[in-house]
Amino acid sequence: MNDEAIHPTFDHVADAAERLRDVAVRTPLLEAPLLNDLVGGRVLVKAEVLQRTGSFKFRGAYNRVSRTTQEERTRGVLCFSSGNHAQGVAAAAQLFKTRAYIVMPATAPALKVARCKAMGAEVILHDGDRRSMEQRTEALAKEKGLVLVRPFDDRFVIAGQGTVGLEIAAQLAERQTFADLVLVPCSGGGLVAGIALALERQSPATAVYSAEPAGFDDMARSLAAGTRVANAPGRSSICDALQVPEPGAITFAVNKPRLRGGLVVNDDEVRRAMAIAFEHLKIVVEPGGAVGLAAILAGRVDVRGRTVVVVASGGNVDPAVFRSAIGERDHRSSVA
Amino acid sequence: MNDEAIHPTFDHVADAAERLRDVAVRTPLLEAPLLNDLVGGRVLVKAEVLQRTGSFKFRGAYNRVSRTTQEERTRGVLCFSSGNHAQGVAAAAQLFKTRAYIVMPATAPALKVARCKAMGAEVILHDGDRRSMEQRTEALAKEKGLVLVRPFDDRFVIAGQGTVGLEIAAQLAERQTFADLVLVPCSGGGLVAGIALALERQSPATAVYSAEPAGFDDMARSLAAGTRVANAPGRSSICDALQVPEPGAITFAVNKPRLRGGLVVNDDEVRRAMAIAFEHLKIVVEPGGAVGLAAILAGRVDVRGRTVVVVASGGNVDPAVFRSAIGERDHRSSVA
Repeated sequence: MNDEAIHPTFDHVADAAERLRDVAVRTPLLEAPLLNDLVGGRVLVKAEVLQRTGSFKFRGAYNRVSRTTQEERTRGVLCFSSGNHAQGVAAAAQLFKTRAYIVMPATAPALKVARCKAMGAEVILHDGDRRSMEQRTEALAKEKGLVLVRPFDDRFVIAGQGTVGLEIAAQLAERQTFADLVLVPCSGGGLVAGIALALERQSPATAVYSAEPAGFDDMARSLAAGTRVANAPGRSSICDALQVPEPGAITFAVNKPRLRGGLVVNDDEVRRAMAIAFEHLKIVVEPGGAVGLAAILAGRVDVRGRTVVVVASGGNVDPAVFRSAIGERDHRSSVA
Repeated sequence: MNDEAIHPTFDHVADAAERLRDVAVRTPLLEAPLLNDLVGGRVLVKAEVLQRTGSFKFRGAYNRVSRTTQEERTRGVLCFSSGNHAQGVAAAAQLFKTRAYIVMPATAPALKVARCKAMGAEVILHDGDRRSMEQRTEALAKEKGLVLVRPFDDRFVIAGQGTVGLEIAAQLAERQTFADLVLVPCSGGGLVAGIALALERQSPATAVYSAEPAGFDDMARSLAAGTRVANAPGRSSICDALQVPEPGAITFAVNKPRLRGGLVVNDDEVRRAMAIAFEHLKIVVEPGGAVGLAAILAGRVDVRGRTVVVVASGGNVDPAVFRSAIGERDHRSSVA
């Protein structure tokens, strides 16, 4: 078993929290009484859209980059991503004064390329499929002696994301309340794994669920099957951030014994959740960040009379997608 | 001098903070490094869009309603407003288990009527101009023995809004930093007056400015003239929340010796600020809530190398208005 396969523990999460203390935002737990009325329970929204770079990904990336040696930092770090992980790595590298190399698909939106460059990263556009992009990334890491920051299957990345769970536990205690359920958007499964590790220790009676878009519900099906299963190719979803082909080896090993189950929502349900967050919470949530709230609104879990924490994991959404989401529903239906 | 003309002091603000402690949201001070880069200074955004009811107005309304007697609460409270003040009063009345009567123009959006009703308020639609609506409201107050909650020219309302200033001072201290400037959206002037009272005591070297839309820049012109002047009739602005005809008597008396000046922005500048908040801060800001940020982005004050706090005072915006704001600019221009 190589180093990277070592599984994270609660202590890794606690240690990550120390490192992140003065750099990550302790994001608020938001509540809207009219939203509570709408679902008949208490909904507390962990607003990671307000995190540095607009998503939780900064936490794991920063924790991983913080483990590099001074010598490694003279060369730099590397990742492949067109989205939130790329921005997290770029921001972390900037703080550690090392170079970030970001391999992105040639089709990446200009805005995302520009944001990484604005944080000092070097963007390498790759014309090819996901597998060839991964291969190019690994080759580049070897060639230049760069540290590869994996998007989820890394104990330090998982531990960094787990600090969201520590904050949830602390914020519930400050409110003198208890969460029956915690719902977490899931792609490779690093965020939900980290949160499950944190809550297993700090709120063991809370049921943790992953939430995914239809067509990319590999975690839900893997949890049901008890073994990792992949998504069928050729599916599409509005959730651009949640399209990993299968759960990670490490993340699934963490999640399998700890999650109560996986919830699945469709694109229309996601758009409705984005619109509800716009109206009642006044936050910008990207499609992939809204799948947990969508699962509540669509009744995938019973929240009546219960307290549920849902993570709004990211807010990096193109204006056109957001405009479409908030324009497609009858807003009068959302109150009383 | 009657009771209502008594001016608020710092002690009123501190007392309001005690009453609001467990009911108002201590809204976060948000920061986005790429936004800082864009303006060449440090911008800290006090996100009152995340306040209960989606704007700061809850603070003043709650503080005022908290002063009613048990006997007054058997009858109820009253206000005239189609917007944020109405929702603040409705929410405050609900918490004190008293009835809220809200007089709104017959043209008020269905959504705003629905939101007040959802909080248990009785909405009275009035077909007539502002002056006749005020008269009807005062008549109703007398007839039913209701307590009128004024939108700004009331020491308890001003003191409640001033708790925003106390929080800003505390949050700056937590960051071990100092604000050179604080910019506050302004209509009747209650929010900026309360903040100025708080900061006069807690951060006296900070310069406080009001921010207003063109055509409704009565505070800026009144500050310049040294006496209250009204807006010319017939003007229009995208900022529906900031269209009071002239500064309040009490608010102007508080503001005149305490504000450094008044800043004025146009509709395009407001829309750009809404889009920048969407992109960099991931919050939903209504037009009137964005005038302070607009003043920074438009260069109305010099923030280069300085730290500026700007209040994003509300987020209750119709989807169509928001869609138009985030769709009308070239987003690539906002980074690098």
